[in-house]
Amino acid sequence: MRSDDSAPPVDLIRHLFAARSIAIVGASSNGLKAAGRTLRYLQMHGFQGEIYPVNPRRGEVQGLRCYAALSELPTVPELAVVVLQASEVAPAIAECGELGVPVVIVFASGFAEIGPEGAALQDEVAEVARRYGVRVLGPNCNGVIGAADGVTATFMTGIDDESLVLRDDGIAFVTQSGAMGAFILTEAQMSGIGLGRFVSTGNEMDISLSEVIEGLVQDDTTKVVLGYVEGVRAPQRLRQALAAARTNGVPVCLMKVGRSQAGAAAAASHTGALAGADVVFDGLLAQYDAVRAHDVDHLLDLGRVFGLSARPKGGRLTVITLSGGAGVLMADAIEDYGLSLASWDRAWSERMGAVLPAFASVRNPIDVTGALVTDPELLRKALDVAIEHPDTDIITVLVGNMQRQEDQVCEIVESAAARTDRPIVTVWVGGTGRAVPRLARSGLVGFTEPVRAIRALSSLVRFWAPAEPTPATSAADPQVESSPDRVVVDEVEAKRLLAAHGVPVVGEDEVLTADEAAAAATRLGFPAVVKLLSTEVAHKSDLGLVQVGLADAGQVRAAAERILVAAEEHGVTDRRLVVQPMISSETELILGMRRDPVFGPVVVLGIGGVLTEIAADVQVRLPPLTTDDAHAMMNRLRHAELLDGPRGRVAVDRDALAAAVVSFSDLVLHETADLESLEINPLLIDDAGRPVAVDALLVRSSSGLLGRGALR
Amino acid sequence: MRSDDSAPPVDLIRHLFAARSIAIVGASSNGLKAAGRTLRYLQMHGFQGEIYPVNPRRGEVQGLRCYAALSELPTVPELAVVVLQASEVAPAIAECGELGVPVVIVFASGFAEIGPEGAALQDEVAEVARRYGVRVLGPNCNGVIGAADGVTATFMTGIDDESLVLRDDGIAFVTQSGAMGAFILTEAQMSGIGLGRFVSTGNEMDISLSEVIEGLVQDDTTKVVLGYVEGVRAPQRLRQALAAARTNGVPVCLMKVGRSQAGAAAAASHTGALAGADVVFDGLLAQYDAVRAHDVDHLLDLGRVFGLSARPKGGRLTVITLSGGAGVLMADAIEDYGLSLASWDRAWSERMGAVLPAFASVRNPIDVTGALVTDPELLRKALDVAIEHPDTDIITVLVGNMQRQEDQVCEIVESAAARTDRPIVTVWVGGTGRAVPRLARSGLVGFTEPVRAIRALSSLVRFWAPAEPTPATSAADPQVESSPDRVVVDEVEAKRLLAAHGVPVVGEDEVLTADEAAAAATRLGFPAVVKLLSTEVAHKSDLGLVQVGLADAGQVRAAAERILVAAEEHGVTDRRLVVQPMISSETELILGMRRDPVFGPVVVLGIGGVLTEIAADVQVRLPPLTTDDAHAMMNRLRHAELLDGPRGRVAVDRDALAAAVVSFSDLVLHETADLESLEINPLLIDDAGRPVAVDALLVRSSSGLLGRGALR
Repeated sequence: MRSDDSAPPVDLIRHLFAARSIAIVGASSNGLKAAGRTLRYLQMHGFQGEIYPVNPRRGEVQGLRCYAALSELPTVPELAVVVLQASEVAPAIAECGELGVPVVIVFASGFAEIGPEGAALQDEVAEVARRYGVRVLGPNCNGVIGAADGVTATFMTGIDDESLVLRDDGIAFVTQSGAMGAFILTEAQMSGIGLGRFVSTGNEMDISLSEVIEGLVQDDTTKVVLGYVEGVRAPQRLRQALAAARTNGVPVCLMKVGRSQAGAAAAASHTGALAGADVVFDGLLAQYDAVRAHDVDHLLDLGRVFGLSARPKGGRLTVITLSGGAGVLMADAIEDYGLSLASWDRAWSERMGAVLPAFASVRNPIDVTGALVTDPELLRKALDVAIEHPDTDIITVLVGNMQRQEDQVCEIVESAAARTDRPIVTVWVGGTGRAVPRLARSGLVGFTEPVRAIRALSSLVRFWAPAEPTPATSAADPQVESSPDRVVVDEVEAKRLLAAHGVPVVGEDEVLTADEAAAAATRLGFPAVVKLLSTEVAHKSDLGLVQVGLADAGQVRAAAERILVAAEEHGVTDRRLVVQPMISSETELILGMRRDPVFGPVVVLGIGGVLTEIAADVQVRLPPLTTDDAHAMMNRLRHAELLDGPRGRVAVDRDALAAAVVSFSDLVLHETADLESLEINPLLIDDAGRPVAVDALLVRSSSGLLGRGALR
Repeated sequence: MRSDDSAPPVDLIRHLFAARSIAIVGASSNGLKAAGRTLRYLQMHGFQGEIYPVNPRRGEVQGLRCYAALSELPTVPELAVVVLQASEVAPAIAECGELGVPVVIVFASGFAEIGPEGAALQDEVAEVARRYGVRVLGPNCNGVIGAADGVTATFMTGIDDESLVLRDDGIAFVTQSGAMGAFILTEAQMSGIGLGRFVSTGNEMDISLSEVIEGLVQDDTTKVVLGYVEGVRAPQRLRQALAAARTNGVPVCLMKVGRSQAGAAAAASHTGALAGADVVFDGLLAQYDAVRAHDVDHLLDLGRVFGLSARPKGGRLTVITLSGGAGVLMADAIEDYGLSLASWDRAWSERMGAVLPAFASVRNPIDVTGALVTDPELLRKALDVAIEHPDTDIITVLVGNMQRQEDQVCEIVESAAARTDRPIVTVWVGGTGRAVPRLARSGLVGFTEPVRAIRALSSLVRFWAPAEPTPATSAADPQVESSPDRVVVDEVEAKRLLAAHGVPVVGEDEVLTADEAAAAATRLGFPAVVKLLSTEVAHKSDLGLVQVGLADAGQVRAAAERILVAAEEHGVTDRRLVVQPMISSETELILGMRRDPVFGPVVVLGIGGVLTEIAADVQVRLPPLTTDDAHAMMNRLRHAELLDGPRGRVAVDRDALAAAVVSFSDLVLHETADLESLEINPLLIDDAGRPVAVDALLVRSSSGLLGRGALR
């Protein structure tokens, strides 16, 4: 029945996954052929309901009585699986309809996916189904699996294995790609994930992925829904399904393939260029707290963690490991993914230390040391303490190899998990590969790689325990002040140094009075720029100590007066002026150096100006640099296209810029001894495309004092 | 011998990996204990050289003659492994030195890693070694493996397996973490990667990771070096090693853990804030064409692909698959990672089509259909064509499950690979899990996940066949023009529409002459802005049709005149003017809508202004939007901190912005029928933190014509 009819809609979920009677229309007596597998699988995997093979040519099929037609069945089957070829499907649907079979699965290919002829055939079948009010899954689909009830209405060879136990951990999977779905199902089974409900929607002639998701999230047994999405045919239906998921508190994790090829050229606006279909899909998921999976491993990790893990109350992790190195790796990933290491205060650290070897590290990550290999009981003791720790939301155990101790370690983790409501997640690198499936069978989450574990946990935390947005710490612009250890050098001196090494700088004059400023500007040219020159102030523009676009001597004089007055009001004692011709440049770069604690002086080139930190688009290299290095840096900028003068800007003369970078790098090497940092931001581009520094911030360590501007 | 001595430096690589005689100092007769494992492993894995156990308490150890002291050995061993505890190491090193043993491995912990006492002991040992000119690996290390020569100078339990065949595919691995190194080695072995040389450097008292890398890259048998790096003790040495690697054309792939915690607060400049140690490490690797691995899976994928794959000549992939869905997934990943799908012209497509079933897709990705499952020979036929295709650099076969056809498919791939110099890479999802190791044993690369395969291949291509940087296509600012299908509505009308729905807009006047403009500005306030108002021009500022910062009526009048003249010169017939008070705002946002082909109208909020595309920081949602939705969008911006008024900017009144977003969303729903796009960029923030639109670009589809500004 259609959902818009007056009759109540059929319970799709029950009929697909828990039908108590299944007809197989066209069943083959050969269990190896596709048309015979469904029946064989139902028997193999313990289906307890009635199976009705229908085939006019057989009296018996695979040990079961076979019926010549649907009309001869003793009851109306709750589900029918049509295994006939495409041309025979429509009549079979009609027979189902006449009998009142509510849901039918059609495997056959040869419909819309092959072209217009197939599409026409599909429309015929759709019309028949509609006429009778039969709901159809497919055609050209791989069917369904409902593990809890042994329903294996599929021909996929991945489950052709008597030793396979189909478990249901409340993880459901809906796929628009039959083949990828089959592969992913097998991957899940290999790693012990109880992917208990599987649906392949095929051509979606009737039942869509969205409708199935909507039904699943309203079923109490569903813990998480995974989806493999190729195309969204009914976007509003998908939105409805995601809204239902959010209402019911069921996580939905979707992998979407098939990006929009529509380029920015076709876009009518920035908005169009920025918000392509893939970005919109991201937005839709974000809107309803659904999760986007980036690849198959990620999709299954999400299934694992949402299906098996207890619900965390927050994102504070305690890591217990036998390797300090592994602990460092976890700490990195925890920071990258927005989680945090739980704080262990002195009292709790002492409690932990009391049960561990002398050289154990009791600061989180807790390193129980390699003694764990010979004495796995150390892990039990550590976990006993950790599960009591009040500031821990999630415990992560990180081990590797220990093949001989696998059973013992798994039992220890299982035992601890039974005594706490906090999630305990295990990362087992190397080893036999069997620990993770074994833990899954005990209902516990395991991973084989630390970063994957943290990535999945971050989604888990975000869903169950979303953090209040932290009040944004004002992204303080770096402030630098002179101190006993460091000296800010005034910009004129800084530029002199740059010029001495061949870095292009703007011509300028240093003066002391407003009249001198006017005279200097007259010489240098208008429009002019006047700035305070001082070693006491690093960021002048914030304080009104920079005046630009001064059109004549009078404006220069007035601006200079204002600056000197303002500086005095701010308590600046070193009050000089610098006058420059104004360079207008739409392109702003950053060229700088800093002293890295490990690598020493490094050179940075990238996108600069007011949004330097926003773009965060820089390349770093260690001097000495060659011209090739400089060009390589330019090429590897994410926004390298800015250098080629888009939107009417002047194109950067890359050779000139490379030369400037090389000169800068030479300066860095020569001045290393006491140069703490030197930054040209913005490095402007003049009308000929050549770089020119109009300002520079130079900080020396106090051991290198040079003339004026030295330490007071 | 020290490398700075006059004696020639010892050949570290030969002594570590291919020593022909090995002394084990302190060897235990118990092969299960750590002190006994090395000897047992050497015998287990077929070491052909001389093994000299040294232990004064034994005459025989594990079937070999045991010597009471090193001095009693018949020859000078090329390598010594000291398995004694920490306190006994220094004397043992002295004995080695006296005998002239060139290289010694020390397993014992209890040195610098435990604290000051251990550090002092380590210094003692270092002094002894230095005195005698003995090179030392460790202490506190896991030793080495040199598979080609059966050298297993280690106690790691991961190789305690007689059935394990240690293969050498030219892949070397150097690790600073013993435990993580052991786990990674086991992971490698499980997936069939012939990680033939393994070094754990431990405390790096003497021999460092950098020195080992430098030696390995100068050895002809090394195809790729993988590294697990925790800390760079000798940065110049690392740089030297990477330079040597580049000179010798050997790829080095490093995973680095332990990010710098130094925050921007300590940075003295933007440069400091941007170029933290981790970014510098990236720069160093980029500088020398080394590759950074992001996690363990990635590290091993790189080893796999650089060790086994033939060298590609470019990045054009031909994908052969049995699933259209899988092909789409590959196409996405190929685009994401900067590779490309090889072009198959008509002639070649027909050649391929001739050997495939009727419904196969012969456009790359080539979908041979599920018929492959019953007829694997289809793959052979497809590969036979593909290996002849001149525009293909790399062939990727993507299959899944097919457990019964595994041998046949592997043989087909192996056969094709033997007949071409192009890399053939297999992605096998699901299945038995044994296909990838089997292919590796045949020297072929396999993956279990498509995205991982493409990620690794992109590094392979970048190393062997770096592309010339493509001349940057000028990032054309989106242009919109009226056409028969769409109509640009003038900004005053656009803002009227916004205002009608409650979106805050600037007060303004529409006028026709310069005098009227002056009068309007006098009423609205100075400084003023004058812009051309017309339906014929979308991006006015490019053409000088916007004048800002006009301080008085005279300036307004003059500016208005100039604009009208310029417009006439540009051939604009609809020449009106709009006058506004100038709003200066450091914060610029974008608020817009577009019509997505799948999802219909979508609302976009994010960082706007001149660097909109650079920041690419927007959130997308589907209307209707609630206040909560709007706040969620703000919170999820990568640069949400910009909204809180850094650097003296005004903080955004988030409630006011949310209200504006909700109003905008209401407009979108009401006007849907013919609204193609509507963009406010920039949305400014006034002195009270409230959003205000000073401009708006509205495009209607031609079915909705309203008054002035209609289609010409």
